[in-house]
Amino acid sequence: MGVSKRLKSWMGDVRVDDLRNRLTDLAEQSMDRHLRLAVTGLSQSGKTVFITALVHHLLHAHKSGSLPFFELAANGRVVGTRDLSAESSSPFPLRDAIEGLSQPSPHWPQSTRGLSEVRLAIRYRRAPGLRRVFGDSSTLFLDIIDYPGEWLLDLPMLEQSFEQWCESQRQLFMKEPRRTVAAGWLQKLQRIDWNSPRDDALLQELSREYSTLLQILRRDPHALSLLQPGRCVLPGDMEGSELLQLFPLVLPEPVSSEAPEGSLRWTLQQRYEQYRQQVIRPFYVRYFSRFDRQVVLVDCLKTLNRGEACFNDMKQALSAILQSFNYGRSGFLRRLFSPRIDRVLFASTKADHVTANQHHNLDRFLELIVQDAQRDMGFEGIDTRCMAIASVRATQAAQAHVDGQTLSCLRGLRKDTGEEVALFPGEIPTELPGSEDWTQDRFRFVDFAPHRLPSADLKSSHHIRLDQLLEYMTGDQFQ
Amino acid sequence: MGVSKRLKSWMGDVRVDDLRNRLTDLAEQSMDRHLRLAVTGLSQSGKTVFITALVHHLLHAHKSGSLPFFELAANGRVVGTRDLSAESSSPFPLRDAIEGLSQPSPHWPQSTRGLSEVRLAIRYRRAPGLRRVFGDSSTLFLDIIDYPGEWLLDLPMLEQSFEQWCESQRQLFMKEPRRTVAAGWLQKLQRIDWNSPRDDALLQELSREYSTLLQILRRDPHALSLLQPGRCVLPGDMEGSELLQLFPLVLPEPVSSEAPEGSLRWTLQQRYEQYRQQVIRPFYVRYFSRFDRQVVLVDCLKTLNRGEACFNDMKQALSAILQSFNYGRSGFLRRLFSPRIDRVLFASTKADHVTANQHHNLDRFLELIVQDAQRDMGFEGIDTRCMAIASVRATQAAQAHVDGQTLSCLRGLRKDTGEEVALFPGEIPTELPGSEDWTQDRFRFVDFAPHRLPSADLKSSHHIRLDQLLEYMTGDQFQ
Repeated sequence: MGVSKRLKSWMGDVRVDDLRNRLTDLAEQSMDRHLRLAVTGLSQSGKTVFITALVHHLLHAHKSGSLPFFELAANGRVVGTRDLSAESSSPFPLRDAIEGLSQPSPHWPQSTRGLSEVRLAIRYRRAPGLRRVFGDSSTLFLDIIDYPGEWLLDLPMLEQSFEQWCESQRQLFMKEPRRTVAAGWLQKLQRIDWNSPRDDALLQELSREYSTLLQILRRDPHALSLLQPGRCVLPGDMEGSELLQLFPLVLPEPVSSEAPEGSLRWTLQQRYEQYRQQVIRPFYVRYFSRFDRQVVLVDCLKTLNRGEACFNDMKQALSAILQSFNYGRSGFLRRLFSPRIDRVLFASTKADHVTANQHHNLDRFLELIVQDAQRDMGFEGIDTRCMAIASVRATQAAQAHVDGQTLSCLRGLRKDTGEEVALFPGEIPTELPGSEDWTQDRFRFVDFAPHRLPSADLKSSHHIRLDQLLEYMTGDQFQ
Repeated sequence: MGVSKRLKSWMGDVRVDDLRNRLTDLAEQSMDRHLRLAVTGLSQSGKTVFITALVHHLLHAHKSGSLPFFELAANGRVVGTRDLSAESSSPFPLRDAIEGLSQPSPHWPQSTRGLSEVRLAIRYRRAPGLRRVFGDSSTLFLDIIDYPGEWLLDLPMLEQSFEQWCESQRQLFMKEPRRTVAAGWLQKLQRIDWNSPRDDALLQELSREYSTLLQILRRDPHALSLLQPGRCVLPGDMEGSELLQLFPLVLPEPVSSEAPEGSLRWTLQQRYEQYRQQVIRPFYVRYFSRFDRQVVLVDCLKTLNRGEACFNDMKQALSAILQSFNYGRSGFLRRLFSPRIDRVLFASTKADHVTANQHHNLDRFLELIVQDAQRDMGFEGIDTRCMAIASVRATQAAQAHVDGQTLSCLRGLRKDTGEEVALFPGEIPTELPGSEDWTQDRFRFVDFAPHRLPSADLKSSHHIRLDQLLEYMTGDQFQ
């Protein structure tokens, strides 16, 4: 105030006020923050619903009170949120998705098959202490980037030679269900002389069959996660490209790296190299290395229902994903691009399909799954957390009585029959399942039909912990 | 080796070897560590059973394999454990207690009514890297000191004047069940002119009645924890002392500090001062400020069964206890004695009375109870943790089926009827109970009869998490 008084006596009131406003504007603009939050998922874990619900709650955060543990909203500091997705080159189909969820009989949005983006401008009031210095309000530009988990699972290939990749695939195809599902294809590979000259028709046929195999393994009842190359599962904008005529050479013995130039094996080696250079690397440089934070969605319940092979595959996929983040921080990728992901959240979806009494167990269960990989890796500066969430809550709490005790239950519509039920939905195991759990079909979590998300008047009971997730992923950015 | 060769050529082999052994002995002795672990409990939480079982497992740790998460034992590094309790001036009755627990129909040891001590010498092999420098093995002297939780609850009085103490008691006695239980005594206090001259017979009568009140409030069905002065509940070696003829002046209005010399009120003020100087302070200086680590046992299940008043009282008592540790670190007590407690474990006992599926909830529940106090205090350098344990496991896992799902249950002997049952024991709430939980009698945890602890051949199934507790409290001391 002292300085501005002296300036006013010298320059006149109006010009000083004008100058001050302009400086405030400038300071505000330079203080606007940009946060790129990537969201991906394993085995159809409800990524599109998650993004839709999250954004829907954010767009109403200035008035709805539906996010009590998201401090900015709880303290009434959200001024308003604008959807700027139209600015993006691949906008997330937000309006259709929200409309679909708020229908009387809601339908889930089509799952996106490539990369898409929600861009939000969250205007908020600063924390009291900062207002005098930086002005009353500020804006956080939040990009939520949706990309297939399959592409994330390609990153480990950046560190593997073709032979190493074939060997890791050989290990996978030695086990069920891959072994049986792929039996015919594997026999075909075995009968071929891989040192014979390149035969494009043969490679095209085998790669088409391999892609079909990946699709089968991805679907029920197998529901596997660790499927490579990711673009052979979800080509995105590469549909039909020759680069995707690629498959691992899975033979009874490990393959050697020496291949006669122009041979079948040599051609696959070359394609693998091209895939790494022209598909994985650009994805890594253009997107992955520019994300600030990552949410990985996992449907633990479905995986438990599907049985041991599905569960183990998910565990391996999560390890591979963790490794990708680690490569980025301290491995060879860092030397190339220095990515900046500093928080990774593993979110166990469908927390509404078990009782609140099991939520801690669900948090802990995902921790159990990733802890081996975490321990082996020693993250430098990446904070990882596991959290059970539900994007659109489909059930309500209910109670039953057993042996004179209250037992927490759920009320909701069964997805298979459509009837309203109140039932005990089962327990989340406190340890990784043992072999007897699998043989005895221990896990039979019921699927509940989706619940309508109103287009306005949102409540905290419409989700589970989306607010805690927002707080963890963005809370420190609102200053 | 170079040095010892040169020494040998100069002094002769035998004397050098002798010297080396003596130096090793000396180094070893100076490296022996001493750890003073204090154990106390709230509302008859099974402290004596806990210490007995813990020591019993430790005495067998070199051969039993019953402590898989206590790394020293799991890695086979325990050479042997000796009981040196006889050296103590107040030995814990270890042999009787172990014998009692291993009877065919086991009985719990008599609860100690003062301070007593187990002194163990744990001989162990050093970690490989340290062996060359410090010798093969070392000894940790572990003192486990058992003292009544009531005495711990006296520590806050060190910071309160008589008037402040009376006021805090007045707040307590305004609520149930204290108000009703103490109604007659409170009326008596009200009828007395406290400025009238000292009358020893009257004070003796009122203090005797007050002690009786404390005993009633301590027992079922009230089972309160926050009872002061602690020695009026458990006098220890002060039985009959005039110092204990002390009670708070609980009147409808706060009492003022001005009291005519020689009056009744003045006498109580003096006694309170004496109690602080001659009872609390010496306990603090002689024992509390010399403990290294503290275990506080809490029986959450019993407290939930007893209802709201009992539960709130326990919550308040735990806050007061946490405050005592904090006083010691950073408050006025630090300036006087600099105590050294660096870890405090709150252990929720009787974890065997709920299913494994509820253990995380039981950990978290105790965290919920203490977290307010923790947040308010800002511990400097004290690590606190909450853990659900069972000293002697009285139940086995069982299963029931509800709605086609597996429900975890327990098998054991009911304490009230003695019959073997398999039942669903109830859930631990995931939030602090609300008023409707109390009115509806939500919590009815069943008491199981004690199980025999064999005198040898101990297994990890005989306890729950005693090994994790040992690891946390002592694991870093074995070097």
